[in-house]
Amino acid sequence: MKKKIGLLGATGSIGTSALDVLRNNPESFELVAFSFYSNIELAKKIIEEFQPVVVGVRTKAMVQELSLLYPQIKFQAGMEGLVAVATAKAADIVLTALTGSVGLLPTMAAIESGKDIALANKETLVMAGQWVMQAAKEKGVKILPVDSEHSAIFQVLQSQDNKNVKELIITASGGSFRDLTREKLKQVTLEDALKHPNWSMGKKITIDSSTMVNKGLEVIEAHWLFDASYDKIKVVLHRESTVHSMIKLVDGAYFAQLGPRDMREPIQYALTFPKRTLLKNEKDFDIADVSTLHFDKLDEERFPMLTLAFVVGGKGGSFPTVFNAANEVAVNAFIDGKIKYLEIEELIKRAVSKHQEEINLTLEMVIEIDKKTRQKVYKWIEELKSI
Amino acid sequence: MKKKIGLLGATGSIGTSALDVLRNNPESFELVAFSFYSNIELAKKIIEEFQPVVVGVRTKAMVQELSLLYPQIKFQAGMEGLVAVATAKAADIVLTALTGSVGLLPTMAAIESGKDIALANKETLVMAGQWVMQAAKEKGVKILPVDSEHSAIFQVLQSQDNKNVKELIITASGGSFRDLTREKLKQVTLEDALKHPNWSMGKKITIDSSTMVNKGLEVIEAHWLFDASYDKIKVVLHRESTVHSMIKLVDGAYFAQLGPRDMREPIQYALTFPKRTLLKNEKDFDIADVSTLHFDKLDEERFPMLTLAFVVGGKGGSFPTVFNAANEVAVNAFIDGKIKYLEIEELIKRAVSKHQEEINLTLEMVIEIDKKTRQKVYKWIEELKSI
Repeated sequence: MKKKIGLLGATGSIGTSALDVLRNNPESFELVAFSFYSNIELAKKIIEEFQPVVVGVRTKAMVQELSLLYPQIKFQAGMEGLVAVATAKAADIVLTALTGSVGLLPTMAAIESGKDIALANKETLVMAGQWVMQAAKEKGVKILPVDSEHSAIFQVLQSQDNKNVKELIITASGGSFRDLTREKLKQVTLEDALKHPNWSMGKKITIDSSTMVNKGLEVIEAHWLFDASYDKIKVVLHRESTVHSMIKLVDGAYFAQLGPRDMREPIQYALTFPKRTLLKNEKDFDIADVSTLHFDKLDEERFPMLTLAFVVGGKGGSFPTVFNAANEVAVNAFIDGKIKYLEIEELIKRAVSKHQEEINLTLEMVIEIDKKTRQKVYKWIEELKSI
Repeated sequence: MKKKIGLLGATGSIGTSALDVLRNNPESFELVAFSFYSNIELAKKIIEEFQPVVVGVRTKAMVQELSLLYPQIKFQAGMEGLVAVATAKAADIVLTALTGSVGLLPTMAAIESGKDIALANKETLVMAGQWVMQAAKEKGVKILPVDSEHSAIFQVLQSQDNKNVKELIITASGGSFRDLTREKLKQVTLEDALKHPNWSMGKKITIDSSTMVNKGLEVIEAHWLFDASYDKIKVVLHRESTVHSMIKLVDGAYFAQLGPRDMREPIQYALTFPKRTLLKNEKDFDIADVSTLHFDKLDEERFPMLTLAFVVGGKGGSFPTVFNAANEVAVNAFIDGKIKYLEIEELIKRAVSKHQEEINLTLEMVIEIDKKTRQKVYKWIEELKSI
């Protein structure tokens, strides 16, 4: 029987890789629902190729336009559309490839309706890991990582007894600016930041890689996914991104998962788990051609956002929510040319340091804190501009 | 309950590492029997520390000498002594850390008496893999690899469905002469050959590493241990020996086992399998300190013995036996100063090319072929000397 897939964020970088996996395995998968944000021309192609039942779109105008073209399909707009995709009756598993905190509500809705989750939206666990993992446990659904780092750890953990795992070691390419001093960072532009050395990804994640916020979010994500305390999670600089991540065991042995930089591998693994299947049209990769792999310690002073991520992770509660919300707003402001590169860090630090934890925190309160943090950071950005 | 261990070859490099594992885990292991070859002073210390029941020694004179000192222990000499250790009633598992083909008969005896085997003697499988694996299957005993390469592959295979494994990738340091041209090999001495860049091991295996015969034996061993066809087995040059070996899966993902160069890890894993336990006094090793790992293709012309190993492995039958027997005699002659370094290769090539396969091969015939090959190569060496 075919596995039925709901895909949140079909036209982005992960989304199109996921569609390639489905396209290569028509005997295994069926796309029953998807959402997209703005690329309506690509969305039409996806509709025609995969014939889904439900499609989530951004605006009501899009609903009208597409309903005329494809009357057999149910279109819904905005958050309602995302939730409709996440809870589409026919779907067995929902791949959440949305960027940013918008992923939280549809992911929770998918869990509540009993779908397994292939999670490519790390902000969901960063914002609300406690509630997401709890809901998944109660509903008996799996949260399967899609990030290459977490998929690597998830894959090598399969054969291991948790008590034998001493460290989870996340590799970090170092992003676009890994070889620049902090002094040099004062002058960098958006264009510079968008040149990731290894991966071609969306704008936000590329900038997050350069600030190492992305690695920080991954640390917090790993904490929740693998139920690992923060002192067990390490980050190591590995500029080639060939080793996707590692674990260290009690007898000193490391297990690493490595290979070509191809997001289709972790996507396919999440969708076929616990099985593993042939990756069609795989990228040519021979370890003997790799020549050299580098590993290095990360300089905490050079990358203060990674250090801060460990701090907010350790504090727990809504601190990671604040870290993430401030980052999202700041990065968008940087993309829009409203702030300078290093102001991203400044805004995150300020939001975290001003945050007061609430008692008896609930998911609703966390969502409220997320909103308020954003408003605060918007305000700070306006103030910065008026200086 | 403690696992009871028989240890063949207690005073060698693997043997002493194994004793360190037992010493560090007195609550898990008990040494009930061991053999040694010539280091009687070390043997006495082992007897006093571990209080075994059976000890295999080299000569009858040693039996006499030691029986007077330790009347409560049963001593036996020669092959009889090795078999007595291999079949010692109390033992659950026999670690065969003998060097060379002498390991075959005691290993077979241990299998026949229902012991699991922790195999550090690769010649056993090279000479007679077909019969050894068949006997193990019939008796329902496990053959657990101890070589760091095979242990690495065995470890990462634990979570894998065999049908998803595309390649077994054995890493090779390249040995003492990896950076020399073949022209330069004409002049090398025994002293040069014994300087292994990464591991401190016995003389024979260090020389086998430099000729790449050792890697060839490992390829044949992997064929039998993992039931892998030769086209699935690859060898990659990796000068640091940090990645102990790898597998490649159908979706392009590689799994690698890596870590410090410490034979106690694979030894302990074989002895505790399927469990994994803390390695006490582990070597300091942090992947972030590793800095650089190199991988490279192996030049077939530079290392003809590796190519030849794939050929004899592919032919099967007694060809690997001949390859191994010729190598053992030639390496000993080189150690004794009777032949030059490159004559090791010449003798192996000659023995293999002159070999005619017998029909309806049996284990007894293979042992006979082993003996005859040795006699032939001895003769050739005498002829070389008289030139």
